[in-house]
Amino acid sequence: MILEMIAAEQAIEQLIEDFTKSWNVHDAKSFASTFAEDADFTNVFGQKAHGRRAVENIHAAIFSTMFKESHLIAEEVVTRFMGEDLAAVDVRWCMSGARDRQGNPWPERNGLMNLVVRKEGRKWSILVMHNMDLPVITLN
Amino acid sequence: MILEMIAAEQAIEQLIEDFTKSWNVHDAKSFASTFAEDADFTNVFGQKAHGRRAVENIHAAIFSTMFKESHLIAEEVVTRFMGEDLAAVDVRWCMSGARDRQGNPWPERNGLMNLVVRKEGRKWSILVMHNMDLPVITLN
Repeated sequence: MILEMIAAEQAIEQLIEDFTKSWNVHDAKSFASTFAEDADFTNVFGQKAHGRRAVENIHAAIFSTMFKESHLIAEEVVTRFMGEDLAAVDVRWCMSGARDRQGNPWPERNGLMNLVVRKEGRKWSILVMHNMDLPVITLN
Repeated sequence: MILEMIAAEQAIEQLIEDFTKSWNVHDAKSFASTFAEDADFTNVFGQKAHGRRAVENIHAAIFSTMFKESHLIAEEVVTRFMGEDLAAVDVRWCMSGARDRQGNPWPERNGLMNLVVRKEGRKWSILVMHNMDLPVITLN
């Protein structure tokens, strides 16, 4: 059981690596392949999309514009299992090279995405994703 | 099965109502009772707490200061089941009456919290919570 958990954790970390790698080559199809067919996606503005195809279409659009030269780094991945085939995953990330809609450089971003990932057969994929930019000023 | 889903959806809506009601009377113990014993909580600043007791302690502190006169409204609750005893829940909220650390009024806030809720026995509670303020400016 412990070995299975370790294997699952490694598979989830690989999933996050696939996610960032495909982001960084700006390949919407490859990026969307890390999502489940019936995934629910919510971006940092609270805008939603349902399904792998919608995730691909949205990212095809932004990978050719605002995020064409963006680079994403997953700084920390924390996994919490909820049964054998579901897990909640927090990913702290930073991004450089993004541009706003007017084409102006977007300052380096720090954010937190939270996922529910699901195992189907032998494959883990993203079932639910929410993303947020972290505010610069905190309570502490 | 459909009747069970309807009952579960109603129970989850009741959970969100309990959450907002206890927020609005600024009762940390009652608020924390909507969380599972082993809950993971992340606030809008990305700060984390583990366990119902930690959730209670954090909220006892902020309910007597910044959020003493705050009022929370859950504007929209969207539930997605992931099996019979787990669901992902999005809650769009707005808040008035909050103050910043300096005691100055915090303008009306609009946000999105996303939850994983779990059923244990007959009781649904919050297993994982992430919260965010929605940015005022969107891409659209």
